[in-house]
Amino acid sequence: MTANDAVLGIDVGGTKILALAARPDGTTLASAVAETPSRETAERVISAMADTARAAMTKAGLGIDSIGSAGVAAAGAIDARAGTIVHSPHLATMSNTPVVAVLSQLLGMPVAIGNDANIAALGEQRYGAGKGVQDLVFLTISTGIGAGVIIDGKLFTGSAGYAGEVGHMTVDAHGPYGASTTPGAWESLCSGTALARIATERITAGERSSMSTALLDTNQEGLTARDVFAACRSGDALAQDIVADAIVYLGAGLTSLVNLLNPAKIIIGGGLSNEWDAYIAPAVALMREQSFAGIGKLTPVVPPALGAEAGALGAVALASDALHQA
Amino acid sequence: MTANDAVLGIDVGGTKILALAARPDGTTLASAVAETPSRETAERVISAMADTARAAMTKAGLGIDSIGSAGVAAAGAIDARAGTIVHSPHLATMSNTPVVAVLSQLLGMPVAIGNDANIAALGEQRYGAGKGVQDLVFLTISTGIGAGVIIDGKLFTGSAGYAGEVGHMTVDAHGPYGASTTPGAWESLCSGTALARIATERITAGERSSMSTALLDTNQEGLTARDVFAACRSGDALAQDIVADAIVYLGAGLTSLVNLLNPAKIIIGGGLSNEWDAYIAPAVALMREQSFAGIGKLTPVVPPALGAEAGALGAVALASDALHQA
Repeated sequence: MTANDAVLGIDVGGTKILALAARPDGTTLASAVAETPSRETAERVISAMADTARAAMTKAGLGIDSIGSAGVAAAGAIDARAGTIVHSPHLATMSNTPVVAVLSQLLGMPVAIGNDANIAALGEQRYGAGKGVQDLVFLTISTGIGAGVIIDGKLFTGSAGYAGEVGHMTVDAHGPYGASTTPGAWESLCSGTALARIATERITAGERSSMSTALLDTNQEGLTARDVFAACRSGDALAQDIVADAIVYLGAGLTSLVNLLNPAKIIIGGGLSNEWDAYIAPAVALMREQSFAGIGKLTPVVPPALGAEAGALGAVALASDALHQA
Repeated sequence: MTANDAVLGIDVGGTKILALAARPDGTTLASAVAETPSRETAERVISAMADTARAAMTKAGLGIDSIGSAGVAAAGAIDARAGTIVHSPHLATMSNTPVVAVLSQLLGMPVAIGNDANIAALGEQRYGAGKGVQDLVFLTISTGIGAGVIIDGKLFTGSAGYAGEVGHMTVDAHGPYGASTTPGAWESLCSGTALARIATERITAGERSSMSTALLDTNQEGLTARDVFAACRSGDALAQDIVADAIVYLGAGLTSLVNLLNPAKIIIGGGLSNEWDAYIAPAVALMREQSFAGIGKLTPVVPPALGAEAGALGAVALASDALHQA
C-alpha cells in the first residue's frame, strides 16, 4: 500500500476516543476505542488520541507508510485554519491547544480538524444519509440545536468559522433568551433543554401534570425531555400542550432554513430525533406548508444513517480531502 | 480587440432597460438606456434588450467580434440553469420565456441570466461595496426584503435556485403572515410595506396620529413608509412606536443571518436604507449585541456603492464569469 491508500479518522469526545483506519472512500478497515483522559493534561489527551489511532492502524495491518493523513472531529469551538481547539466544555484542559501541530508530529502525517457536529455532517454527506447530495443541512436536536451545513459538497463555515449556529436563529423576537444571547433563539424554544425547562416552569407556576412526580423525584436531576414525551404519550394535557407549542417553533425554524438555504436534503439527528413521529414529523409538515413557493415540499427530511460513527467517518472524509488537496 | 476584451451587461426591469458595454474588470466603456415595452410580447421585449445592448456596443466603438458574452439581470423568478424567466410580475409577458436562447441568437454570443437582486449582489461584491470580500449578504429593504448571498465569491442559489429568501425567515412564530406563506416573516414585520400596513391598521383601529391626514389624503394611495418616517421625525408618538417595534424585528433577522451565515460583510440597500440613522443603525446595534459569541461585532454593515447600476454591473460580472468558464 502507498500513502494514498488509507487515512485515519479520530473522533474525540468528553468520554471516548474512536479511531478508524479507512480507505478514502469511507470503507472502514479497522477501529479502536479508548476512554478520553479528559481530566488530564492536553498532552495526555493528544497522546491517547495518537495511541488509539495507532491501534486502529495495527489492527488493519497498516504501517505508517500506507497512511496519508488523519482527520479529527472534536467537541467544542474549533479554529480549523489554525488547527486549535479554542474552547471545549467537554475537553476542558484542551482549550487553546494546538492539537493539529502536536498530533501531526506524534503521528508523522498531516492532520486536519473540525468541530464534531460539522464533521458528522460531512460524514453523513460523504458516506451516509446525504450520499450524492451536494447541499444539505444536518441538524442535531438534543440539549441544544446544532448544525453542519454542506454547500457544494463542502463544509460551510462562513468568513470566520462561525457559520451554522442555527440554534441561535431568532424564531420569536419577543421570546425568552434561554442560554442564548439571541432572544427567542430556536434552541431556547424547542431543544430538549427547552422542553424540560418549560415543563418545569409551568408546573412550578402551579399547572397540574403527571410530570410533577418526576420533577419531585430526588433520584433524578429535574425533568428531562424524555419525561415530557413519556407524559405526552400517556395523555398528560400539559405535556401535550408544551410539545404542540414547541412543534410550532421547530417548524418555523425549519422553514427559515429551507427559505434561506434551499438544501437538497435535511438530516435530523440527536436525542429528540428518536421522537420522530411525535415531534419531528409534525414540524416537517408545518415547514412544507409554510415554505416560500412550496419549495419545502421538495426537500426530503430524513434521520442520519451513520449513528455513533458519523464523527469518525466525517474525520475520514476530512482526511481524504486533505489527501486530494496535497 | 478580441472576443475576450469586452462583455455586455443588461439590466431589464418593468420600466427600463440599462445596457453596459464594459471590460471584464468592470470598467464601463459605454451605456445605453431604453424604455421596457413591458406590455408588448416577450419577443418585443427581448428584441428591445438586444437593441439597447447593440446601442451600447456602438457607442463604445465595439464590433460584435470584440464582445465575448452578455449577462442579464431580470426582475422576477429566474431559472438560471434553464435560462428562463419563470414568472415576473413586472415583465408579465415574459413568464416562461427562454430569454437566454432567444437573446443569445439575436446577439450572436453566449448569454447568462440571473435574478436582479442576486445579480446586484454579485455586482457589489465584484466592483462595489463588497470588493475583495468572498462571503457577503446584500440586503434590499424596500417593499419586501430580498437578498443576494455570496459564498466563496460565488452567488449562492441553493439546490434548486431558491436560496436567499431572507424576507421569508420567521422572526416571530406567532406573528402575522402579511403576503408571505411564513408566519411572522421578516418582511411582514419590518419592510416598507409592513411599516405602512401596521400604521394604517393602528390608525384605523382608533389610535391618534399626525399620519391620519396622509391616510385620508385622496391624492395618495394610502400611507407609505416615507410617511411613517416623516411622522417619526416630527415627533409623532405612534410612528415612533411603530418604528421602535420594527427595529427589534429588523435586528432579530440580522442576528439570525449573522449566526447562520457568518458573512464578512453585510450591504444594505433599498428605499429604507435611506433611513440609515433612524432605522438601519439601531437594528445593526441590536444585532451586534445579540449575535452568537459576539461575532456580529466583527461584521461591517455598509450601504451599497454602485447605486442604480448595480444590476447592470452584476450582469457584467456574470458575463465575465461565463467568459472565463468558456
